[in-house]
Amino acid sequence: MVAVAILAAGRGTRMKSDLPKVLHTLAGRSLVERVLDSCSLLDLDRQIVIIGYQGEMVKQALSHRQGIEFVEQTQQLGTGHAVQQVMSSLQKYRGDLLVLNGDAPLLRPETLQKLVETHQIKQNAATLLTANLPNPQGYGRVFCNGGNLVSHIIEDRDCNLAQKQNRRVNAGIYCFNWQKLATSLPNLSTNNDQQEYYLTEVVDYLSPVMAFDAEDYRETNGINDRRQLSEAYDILQARIKDDWMKAGVTMIDPSSITIDESVRLEADVILEPQTHLRGNTTVATGSRIGPGSLIDNSLIGSNVNVLYSVITDSEIAANTRVGPYSHLRGEVKLGQSCRIGNFVEIKKTTVGSNTNVAHLSYLGDATLGDRVNIGAGTITANYDGKQKHPTTIKQGTKTGSNSVLVAPVILGENVTVAAGSVVTQDVNDNALVVARSRQKEIPDWHSQD
Amino acid sequence: MVAVAILAAGRGTRMKSDLPKVLHTLAGRSLVERVLDSCSLLDLDRQIVIIGYQGEMVKQALSHRQGIEFVEQTQQLGTGHAVQQVMSSLQKYRGDLLVLNGDAPLLRPETLQKLVETHQIKQNAATLLTANLPNPQGYGRVFCNGGNLVSHIIEDRDCNLAQKQNRRVNAGIYCFNWQKLATSLPNLSTNNDQQEYYLTEVVDYLSPVMAFDAEDYRETNGINDRRQLSEAYDILQARIKDDWMKAGVTMIDPSSITIDESVRLEADVILEPQTHLRGNTTVATGSRIGPGSLIDNSLIGSNVNVLYSVITDSEIAANTRVGPYSHLRGEVKLGQSCRIGNFVEIKKTTVGSNTNVAHLSYLGDATLGDRVNIGAGTITANYDGKQKHPTTIKQGTKTGSNSVLVAPVILGENVTVAAGSVVTQDVNDNALVVARSRQKEIPDWHSQD
Amino acid sequence: MVAVAILAAGRGTRMKSDLPKVLHTLAGRSLVERVLDSCSLLDLDRQIVIIGYQGEMVKQALSHRQGIEFVEQTQQLGTGHAVQQVMSSLQKYRGDLLVLNGDAPLLRPETLQKLVETHQIKQNAATLLTANLPNPQGYGRVFCNGGNLVSHIIEDRDCNLAQKQNRRVNAGIYCFNWQKLATSLPNLSTNNDQQEYYLTEVVDYLSPVMAFDAEDYRETNGINDRRQLSEAYDILQARIKDDWMKAGVTMIDPSSITIDESVRLEADVILEPQTHLRGNTTVATGSRIGPGSLIDNSLIGSNVNVLYSVITDSEIAANTRVGPYSHLRGEVKLGQSCRIGNFVEIKKTTVGSNTNVAHLSYLGDATLGDRVNIGAGTITANYDGKQKHPTTIKQGTKTGSNSVLVAPVILGENVTVAAGSVVTQDVNDNALVVARSRQKEIPDWHSQD
Repeated sequence: MVAVAILAAGRGTRMKSDLPKVLHTLAGRSLVERVLDSCSLLDLDRQIVIIGYQGEMVKQALSHRQGIEFVEQTQQLGTGHAVQQVMSSLQKYRGDLLVLNGDAPLLRPETLQKLVETHQIKQNAATLLTANLPNPQGYGRVFCNGGNLVSHIIEDRDCNLAQKQNRRVNAGIYCFNWQKLATSLPNLSTNNDQQEYYLTEVVDYLSPVMAFDAEDYRETNGINDRRQLSEAYDILQARIKDDWMKAGVTMIDPSSITIDESVRLEADVILEPQTHLRGNTTVATGSRIGPGSLIDNSLIGSNVNVLYSVITDSEIAANTRVGPYSHLRGEVKLGQSCRIGNFVEIKKTTVGSNTNVAHLSYLGDATLGDRVNIGAGTITANYDGKQKHPTTIKQGTKTGSNSVLVAPVILGENVTVAAGSVVTQDVNDNALVVARSRQKEIPDWHSQD
Repeated sequence: MVAVAILAAGRGTRMKSDLPKVLHTLAGRSLVERVLDSCSLLDLDRQIVIIGYQGEMVKQALSHRQGIEFVEQTQQLGTGHAVQQVMSSLQKYRGDLLVLNGDAPLLRPETLQKLVETHQIKQNAATLLTANLPNPQGYGRVFCNGGNLVSHIIEDRDCNLAQKQNRRVNAGIYCFNWQKLATSLPNLSTNNDQQEYYLTEVVDYLSPVMAFDAEDYRETNGINDRRQLSEAYDILQARIKDDWMKAGVTMIDPSSITIDESVRLEADVILEPQTHLRGNTTVATGSRIGPGSLIDNSLIGSNVNVLYSVITDSEIAANTRVGPYSHLRGEVKLGQSCRIGNFVEIKKTTVGSNTNVAHLSYLGDATLGDRVNIGAGTITANYDGKQKHPTTIKQGTKTGSNSVLVAPVILGENVTVAAGSVVTQDVNDNALVVARSRQKEIPDWHSQD
Repeated sequence: MVAVAILAAGRGTRMKSDLPKVLHTLAGRSLVERVLDSCSLLDLDRQIVIIGYQGEMVKQALSHRQGIEFVEQTQQLGTGHAVQQVMSSLQKYRGDLLVLNGDAPLLRPETLQKLVETHQIKQNAATLLTANLPNPQGYGRVFCNGGNLVSHIIEDRDCNLAQKQNRRVNAGIYCFNWQKLATSLPNLSTNNDQQEYYLTEVVDYLSPVMAFDAEDYRETNGINDRRQLSEAYDILQARIKDDWMKAGVTMIDPSSITIDESVRLEADVILEPQTHLRGNTTVATGSRIGPGSLIDNSLIGSNVNVLYSVITDSEIAANTRVGPYSHLRGEVKLGQSCRIGNFVEIKKTTVGSNTNVAHLSYLGDATLGDRVNIGAGTITANYDGKQKHPTTIKQGTKTGSNSVLVAPVILGENVTVAAGSVVTQDVNDNALVVARSRQKEIPDWHSQD
């Protein structure tokens, strides 16, 4: 039985922000959400978030998640004080309590799982997550006897030179036997420089206390300012990109690419520089994305090419080419082997296979069949100033350059729309539709100037 | 009393350029301008630039600055020779002389201020700027007695193994008591490998000479080739970006972002990757810029979104969304809560609030009121082949898709322009204006093929 | 007399790919092609590629190259086994054999040239390429007597602690006296963990065997997974970019720029961030490219500006400005001092000098004279649904906004096309051509709503 308590009451002054620290986002999710998600391999009985600064805002930001309890810490008097606030909520609780920092979003679920397992198998009173830092300066050092049993923790400022050589530090992340912790919490004192209640102090009252090393010390990084936020992003990105490279994805200049954790890629996908994949995006094998593209929450089929384009909330079938300079958004569905070209925006539109929208067009709220050819500069006038209307263009139809299709309107199969026409009424299959003026020539106009 | 002499006579052969070295630019300003600006905290009595190679070009490049004197060094016979050229100009001068290299643009004004202060408080004959290099190979080492008093400087090639361990090097930047220096300058010899007059030699003739360490050794970096120019840019950018992160700006992949020093950002601005902010640009709180955007010399209000766009010399009010693929230039002013969309270019145009220019439009020399809706493909024909004319579109007006507004023209309030219309005459308030042909249908056209 | 045998039979399981490893591309060329090209300074008598996994695909990929012989290794039983396969092909060969790995694409031609020279001057039986790795763990160490004569090679797992200190490793690249090698090859055994035939074993049978150090150890890097592929790309890019910086090219944020080896740049070119130059691209002096641009296989004249644009297979003369957001492709030729602007796509078109195509246009299969002004939204309707037709626009002609030129069509000199016109017939010099409807106004339309 495990419960988690997340310390999320601090302001995070060094963030210099109107937002509380734990609500800053890292690759699409807030820090506190990431900390909650780092428990995904644990079967949690209780999830308690300790709020304080802008607590309502934190509550609101987590309102879409089930089963979160909020406990308020009205004054911020230290980590020990924070955990004291959960005592009444957990009065009858009989299990372990994992204490996490809301500003440490890089913990892997596997690490917390192992921490808790170790804690339970060893029947520890407390198990500390420790990290071996390359530069431990400023951190409390953890000293152990054999078997990782913690003998004492010494703050950096109290370490002698020999002790300073110890690079094993306290990450501030703990698994406790809750009943033992609950007995010790009231004993915390404020006998320290900051005059705060430190959770570390309970280590003196509990036994046995064991240290558990994080495999990668960077997992324990906390975020206190924007530089650390940006570094955490880099660490996260390096993890994600390494995983996809191992899975067979080619990346050209990976440092310039960003990929959310929610993205799924198949082998033999090629990512060009300055490509950004976000949200629930999937890219199938053989596709080449970038340079300079942003794809959010979209499904990209196999052997698709996307060059300098923005695609959101859309689906693209195999062998289709997009860009440069296309913008697809709002539930676009493209069929196979289409060509979507330069300076083309498509919104909430379904397109068949082998259809071209190659240049300077806007299609909105439309349905296009197979083998349609949309001429350069063709626009669906889908908005009458009050509401949106649909356009249907059936298979084999061709629109001329700079034509306008005023919705609602239906163009039948194999229709030809003459260049420069404004189409306001439905057109029958196989028809030519023209709506333009005859060409007149006024000679010697230039010499009149 | 302080004067400055800047050595700017060299060609900089390794730059492989038609430009003299000091005129290469670093983040928008030439190296020599940056060196001049590094004196911004000093109250300078005289500013002397010693020119030689392409001297006229250097003069020209600095012609917009007040109070610069130019002294010519016709032959380049070394740093000592360069400073000898200012002797006649400074014949009656009674004060200190700061000698700077025109190719060392990373000095912080604070560093030079402290150098001069130290020089003056200690009443030194000369004060050398020194740097502790991680890899001092090739540089002259500075050896001091107590109190940073320089005992001797030994060139790298003359150092024994023990001396080579000294990482404190001469940065070639000096503050002199001018009268003492002037007495010593004529004594310089050319007894060295290069047969040049070295300024370093005066250290032997003057007393006391003191060393003053730059806090960050990279401040003293000189630029001799394009690699060093690019490294200097990186150092400068790291400084600027660190400062803004400390001030509460979030950057995603900061290494891909560039920011000129003249830019001002508020807290809680978010910069996405591949964003470039240049010139006198200001971005207010809550705005999100990028990816892939270039903003030059523009004011961006709060909570503005800019995505894959180029904005120069423009102002954007709060809550407006720009892009992807917008280009605003030449004194555009956008009101609040506008939406400027895909493939839209706007030039020298004022736009009211809540106005949309969402797709494939060009607006030039226009004035738009509030709540205007510009249809996709609308173009202001502002140029008659000889001159530009204005277009006025009053509040609440809607233009249809692919319409052309031939300037000069005024559209009143709440006008509706039908799709595909070419508007050549002014339109009254509330009117519908149409200029297009009736739709004709020729049946069975496709089967005729 | 030198022959080369390239080991290209492996699958490369860790690439997780449908492609055989040697066909993965690095900056536009496959790994195996790069290995072949690393022999460019050798006068090769024979070029043998040893194929196996997906051998037909490898053959096909190299089918455009002259003089390649393919030898099949049906089972992959080790490097020694691979080289055994060439014995029948080289039965009568009397010369040296260079053995290269198809997955080591970073070797410089100069390195192989020196390796072979050393081999021949010293009349070695075998010469090994060695590298001094910063971290040699896992590699076989090469131990030499005086004069680089190899005494023995010890696999990492067999090294004692002292031997592990030796950072000189066997790169797996050899030059052999073929006749001596041929005698030894049948003696190879499979007495090792992998039960494979290792080429290294012949070192025991031959004499003298010499080690030759690669100047830069990174030249010997092999590629086994996508991470190493991306690192190889970085190494290659650093080389290319360093060379161009030495040659006088300014790069802003070079880490974000990619340049193929086939690109040629003149001094005083400036590359802005996120610029990608590929294929046979040349950029002349004074041009500024980027940010955010991709130029492939194109000639860019002097003092050209390209901003946020894509250019392929095209030529641009001096002083022309392109972008932001232009796309030139398929043999476009632009004259001097043109301005190609926002949201403009040009395909297979020749443009004279001082001609502007500034906004929202598509030109395809067209010929434009000098001083032409293409109005915003002008489109050449070059495709009738079956084939492409040409458009000619002679000097001094101006097209109005949103006009369409229906090809085939010829506009004479100094023609004026009125805004919104669809031009379907040829137009005489100096004429004004109009094809649009008169403007009608319906009052009080808005209040009818």
